[in-house]
Amino acid sequence: MKLLSIDASGLVASVAIVTEECLIAEFTLDYKKTHSQTLMPMLDKLVSMTELDLKSLTALAVSSGPGSFTGLRIGSATAKGLAEALEIPIIPVPTLDALAYNFIGSQNLVVPIMDARREQVYTGIYEFKANGDMTIVHKACAMDIHELLSLLSNFDTDITFLGDGVSVYLTEIQESLKELAHFAPPHLSRQRAGAVGALAINYYNRGIYTNAARHRPFYLRLSQAERARLQGDLKP
Amino acid sequence: MKLLSIDASGLVASVAIVTEECLIAEFTLDYKKTHSQTLMPMLDKLVSMTELDLKSLTALAVSSGPGSFTGLRIGSATAKGLAEALEIPIIPVPTLDALAYNFIGSQNLVVPIMDARREQVYTGIYEFKANGDMTIVHKACAMDIHELLSLLSNFDTDITFLGDGVSVYLTEIQESLKELAHFAPPHLSRQRAGAVGALAINYYNRGIYTNAARHRPFYLRLSQAERARLQGDLKP
Repeated sequence: MKLLSIDASGLVASVAIVTEECLIAEFTLDYKKTHSQTLMPMLDKLVSMTELDLKSLTALAVSSGPGSFTGLRIGSATAKGLAEALEIPIIPVPTLDALAYNFIGSQNLVVPIMDARREQVYTGIYEFKANGDMTIVHKACAMDIHELLSLLSNFDTDITFLGDGVSVYLTEIQESLKELAHFAPPHLSRQRAGAVGALAINYYNRGIYTNAARHRPFYLRLSQAERARLQGDLKP
Repeated sequence: MKLLSIDASGLVASVAIVTEECLIAEFTLDYKKTHSQTLMPMLDKLVSMTELDLKSLTALAVSSGPGSFTGLRIGSATAKGLAEALEIPIIPVPTLDALAYNFIGSQNLVVPIMDARREQVYTGIYEFKANGDMTIVHKACAMDIHELLSLLSNFDTDITFLGDGVSVYLTEIQESLKELAHFAPPHLSRQRAGAVGALAINYYNRGIYTNAARHRPFYLRLSQAERARLQGDLKP
């Protein structure tokens, strides 16, 4: 099988073409341009350089959230458009699962943290077996960073952190967990469409997929505008 | 510091822009085109999409071998040309070290294998500490695949294999090591310029670099033409 995978859940824009055996191509950009400017040109470049016949794709994989509202919408809209036109399924891959999958086989607990503002992070806790099996010790959630660090200190074990929340909360993490805290090197520290595609193959083989009409990003929290409306801050 | 990194040591062509904190951009292609067709257009795309001022680069990092003779020459020539023009150092990164670095923090032994034809593989054996420190248990060498498997069976521990040699020797590996053999998923199974760049930052900080005039790829074995000449098969 051959997948086209997309991750636009954070500042990173990443697209890849993945099979069971290898990554045919991957293009990742962590730069200040918005995904609406970068995603389609990157996709176009991958398709042309690999002479990809879009009709040869089995499915579209997309990082499904949580993450940036705008990013998730752009990623999902791109995936939905392509999946609808090509009449193929969409495989939604939870963003934090795909981030953790950068560290498949790790001897440490793996904790991706994405900055969700106001001292909150989107996070999850993951553990790996020697054969690569990934266990979700704590499922994806929005959590106060201090609550997360307090929870993690109970494990009393080495932990690898990754994600864009690391630079924001580096001092707090180091003060709380001391020498048990480790940090991903740059090549494994952010979203990659390759990881989304690799996990998506597992999901597809277990029958976990949807279609363009049904797919929705997984926002986890209400958007700032929605929170404001509920609090009565936004008047019609 | 900001590095441009290149890996053209195998079938994969990969270029990246890396800092200590993150991967600014990475473009990887595992497709039948030759590196002489792909590497410069990929590099050009990265530079234009990130609006990179080449003068802002601290150094060039390149996967230095072993690997494909032609690939290593194209990668090195590209790095040497750029480093000479920009008057910046070259950081040579052993190909197998960079491959193993895909699995930083792994609980298993990590064994990259690159097909070197005639039942031989380019390989090395790597081990990681929880803090990410990488120990070279067996340094890069060309070895008969059966000799490698016999050596590995002595460790009696879980092993993660990666590299283009896996698909060639999959049956032999599984028969020899049974349930102790594990294989990299597609997003971590091949060369990545991001891993080359991440390791290169470590080397640079330890003073390990050279310049365009002195840099040579590390071929490990004689080329087929040179072997033939030494055996007297090639007459002038």
